[in-house]
Amino acid sequence: MTHPVYGRIDGAVVIIGFGSIGKGTLPLIERHFEYDASRLVVIDPDPATHTFLAQHGHRHLQVALTPDNYRAILTDLLGQGGFCVNLSVDTDSLDLMILCRELGALYIDTVTEPWAGFYFDTEHNADRTNYALRQRVRDHAAAHPGGPTAVSCCGANPGMVSWLVKDALMTLSQDMGRDDPVPPGRAGWAALMQSLGVKGIHIAERDTQARRLPRPRGTFVNTWSVEGFIAEGFQPAELGWGTHETWFPDNGHRHATGCGAAIWMDRPGAITRVHTWCPTPGPQFGFLVTHNEAIGISDYYTVPGVGGDPAAPAYRPTCHYAYHPCDDAVLSLHEMFGSCRQQAVHEILTVDEIVEGSDELGVLLYGHARNALWYGSRLSNAQARTLAPYQNATGLQVTSAVLAGMVWALENPRAGIVETDEMDHARCLAVQRPYLGAVEAHYTDWTPLTDRWAQFPEDIDDSDPWQFRNVLAT
Amino acid sequence: MTHPVYGRIDGAVVIIGFGSIGKGTLPLIERHFEYDASRLVVIDPDPATHTFLAQHGHRHLQVALTPDNYRAILTDLLGQGGFCVNLSVDTDSLDLMILCRELGALYIDTVTEPWAGFYFDTEHNADRTNYALRQRVRDHAAAHPGGPTAVSCCGANPGMVSWLVKDALMTLSQDMGRDDPVPPGRAGWAALMQSLGVKGIHIAERDTQARRLPRPRGTFVNTWSVEGFIAEGFQPAELGWGTHETWFPDNGHRHATGCGAAIWMDRPGAITRVHTWCPTPGPQFGFLVTHNEAIGISDYYTVPGVGGDPAAPAYRPTCHYAYHPCDDAVLSLHEMFGSCRQQAVHEILTVDEIVEGSDELGVLLYGHARNALWYGSRLSNAQARTLAPYQNATGLQVTSAVLAGMVWALENPRAGIVETDEMDHARCLAVQRPYLGAVEAHYTDWTPLTDRWAQFPEDIDDSDPWQFRNVLAT
Ligand SMILES: NC(=O)c1ccc[n+]([C@@H]2O[C@H](COP(=O)([O-])OP(=O)(O)OC[C@H]3O[C@@H](n4cnc5c(N)ncnc54)[C@H](O)[C@@H]3O)[C@@H](O)[C@H]2O)c1
Ligand SMILES: NC(=O)c1ccc[n+]([C@@H]2O[C@H](COP(=O)([O-])OP(=O)(O)OC[C@H]3O[C@@H](n4cnc5c(N)ncnc54)[C@H](O)[C@@H]3O)[C@@H](O)[C@H]2O)c1
Repeated sequence: MTHPVYGRIDGAVVIIGFGSIGKGTLPLIERHFEYDASRLVVIDPDPATHTFLAQHGHRHLQVALTPDNYRAILTDLLGQGGFCVNLSVDTDSLDLMILCRELGALYIDTVTEPWAGFYFDTEHNADRTNYALRQRVRDHAAAHPGGPTAVSCCGANPGMVSWLVKDALMTLSQDMGRDDPVPPGRAGWAALMQSLGVKGIHIAERDTQARRLPRPRGTFVNTWSVEGFIAEGFQPAELGWGTHETWFPDNGHRHATGCGAAIWMDRPGAITRVHTWCPTPGPQFGFLVTHNEAIGISDYYTVPGVGGDPAAPAYRPTCHYAYHPCDDAVLSLHEMFGSCRQQAVHEILTVDEIVEGSDELGVLLYGHARNALWYGSRLSNAQARTLAPYQNATGLQVTSAVLAGMVWALENPRAGIVETDEMDHARCLAVQRPYLGAVEAHYTDWTPLTDRWAQFPEDIDDSDPWQFRNVLAT
Repeated sequence: MTHPVYGRIDGAVVIIGFGSIGKGTLPLIERHFEYDASRLVVIDPDPATHTFLAQHGHRHLQVALTPDNYRAILTDLLGQGGFCVNLSVDTDSLDLMILCRELGALYIDTVTEPWAGFYFDTEHNADRTNYALRQRVRDHAAAHPGGPTAVSCCGANPGMVSWLVKDALMTLSQDMGRDDPVPPGRAGWAALMQSLGVKGIHIAERDTQARRLPRPRGTFVNTWSVEGFIAEGFQPAELGWGTHETWFPDNGHRHATGCGAAIWMDRPGAITRVHTWCPTPGPQFGFLVTHNEAIGISDYYTVPGVGGDPAAPAYRPTCHYAYHPCDDAVLSLHEMFGSCRQQAVHEILTVDEIVEGSDELGVLLYGHARNALWYGSRLSNAQARTLAPYQNATGLQVTSAVLAGMVWALENPRAGIVETDEMDHARCLAVQRPYLGAVEAHYTDWTPLTDRWAQFPEDIDDSDPWQFRNVLAT
């Protein structure tokens, strides 16, 4: 199997963070880009990283980036340009992308991350939201258009799922016997989604990867960053809030400033369950963990109302994550919330210890004439093992999106700060597809009102199955 | 190791139900009683049971008892007396005990079970409660005192835990430097509990038994009856309601008739989480699954108020189950409620496939001067394997309680219909102890207000940690 080389990176290649995603991204960079290998550097404070990097002949800067040191360190490395690939936790995405753009370097990350301390020390919950984190980036981008490309939130989700939404919309249009052309830009895409009758979107994921060892007590086990998952899981539940919603959660809050596309609930996302659907399990619980794409997609597909008041759009889809992590992570959450303590030990299941399972990650477009369409990647760990080293299925869905984002940035080096909704979804998916296993469309008759229990009263709206009120589990 | 023979059973020995508990009880009966082996019969409709019984030379009546056939079948078998050991699902405990008493046979069961259909077809939730099931038995017992002994609800819980409560009270008294004598009867026990300042009791259980196979999707895995657990888990959450409670759940209901000791909530127990504590995990979530003992213990320890109005007692403890089943069962519940469908495949983990873990089952007496005392059995599956055949740790805690109850019934053959609170706890625990592993007392400083999250508002009462309002998870 030969691998296409997508382009040349001039200057340094700086990878910040060498955890499960960093370790999986590096071999894809090596495989698909030309660059001066002596100028590749990995920044990560973890000493455990060192041996691996040394064995592979890579330079390792064993340091944690902080507000105090990041300018000096990155200026030194990227002063003559290059590509900064930020795959860390506890580094401020916006600060880093601003600096990279000053330095004329390209930049990509997979999440809008804040400096250490933000997630648990911020006083007000409204300020602990992804809405707040994203709005800062959007406001800066609006004030500083153009210039070197910085790709924001380009992993699997946020990231790839925005490209899948577009593919799914074209699939839906075709399957409805329409011949919508591919819209040229945001307004067209939003109008298309509206005209297709899509009420909302679940980022519907089921991870079935498992090892043969019973989950050890006191250990948080996941298939990607435990630290990242705990941090986002303990942010307030958040979702893009669609125009079809007739009900409002008791503990829900709107934002006074910004795009107005999302609301947050005064409750941790990782303990907030929603009814959702994926091909393998069928109906299942997902956790309404806050994610950048829930806000970004609802924002992107907003059709403005008369006068452009963000609080009164003509159309907006509801959008949120509905995440069933691997079973060990379900148990880890149950233990963490039950004990009211974070586990001291964190483990990420490796490709080699996983004995079964897939990551099935897609977008569930619902509420239209065909009821609901799940469109996404179904990648098994066994497949991932044959496709690229050092990562499980979850990791490969993320790192291949980073690869696609890097390719797009090299091909569009002066696009300014962009989100994945604003990128060429077809080009990005073309780069990513060899790593995604089966990318499939599944229609389902299931709705959140299917098979609800008859024995107990629930606060549901029988007249409209796809109301968020019905999606939110009792 | 020699085993004491506790007595002789005259007449037939009829075991109804040969599931995980029946299969584990039989070897204890064989070991500890004299009886005419040719008159031992097992009634169970499951053909899979047949081979095992045939291999061991036991008579098997492969039939399901129903309201239509039970009189004929049991009269035929128990017409000259004997012992009826009911370890089945879907048979009406009261109907069976009434018949056995007519026939002059002893009777024991581990749960007040209804005929098939009750759990899911009963129209009103108030009628689907264990309160309703238990009150029927209590009313019958009150109207028909004395006569042949029928022991109601004598498994681990309900059952053994009632004996543990008494041991725990004596331990607490001693550790507080008091010299309370062992109370002679119900009024004395209730007064003791009141004077010790106990506000309530969790039946606090953590099952850590696990095998090395990841839980298969679509399979409900448990360490004892899956059918029994699903049935009770889908009854309304129920608890004995103590006099210290100042708050009342929004979805809570009292009963208009009967002992008045308990309330129910309009929500399935197995999806209702409470904050609780066990020695191995420390703080953990338990499920508030309804159980007979939650009502029975609160009723037994009630100190009547002036005039004896059941709705206004002078003292009553809160009591409820706080059950953390084995991890595979936690995942099974998550799947069942998430899909809104019962799994088609049921599996009970066997002693031989379990590779680690214990069942830690005790009573957590809380709210007194020493805060909280957990008192109970910590039995590992590895220990269970050495103690008796064909059962895991969970099973042995149940079957040894059945054994103790049978011994007590043989020694007290004309006690009428009794609950385990009304039996000689010391004698019963003496019989049971060799099978319980370590029986231990653990004090803890933990309360339901320890380590609550600061980031999100909760409906809690800061002034009184042990209010049920704080125990019920958000
Ligand atoms: N968008 C997506 O689909 C997606 C998916 C998975 C992960 N992610 C994100 O990618 C990032 C990496 O995920 P992961 O699974 O590799 O996480 P991980 O926890 O495995 O690794 C994070 C790494 O960052 C390093 N680090 C910590 N503080 C640092 C600092 N101050 N400076 C530099 N490095 C630092 C850690 O030492 C660690 O090696 C996380 O932010 C995560 O949320 C996004
Ligand atoms: N008190 C306790 O601590 C405790 C603990 C565990 C189980 N239990 C109860 O004990 C009982 C047995 O538990 P298990 O784990 O052995 O259950 P199980 O599901 O393994 O077995 C139940 C058996 O009952 C048989 N059965 C079904 N319908 C019948 C009928 N109409 N007539 C005769 N037999 C019938 C089934 O074929 C099956 O073999 C259940 O009611 C359960 O709730 C009580």
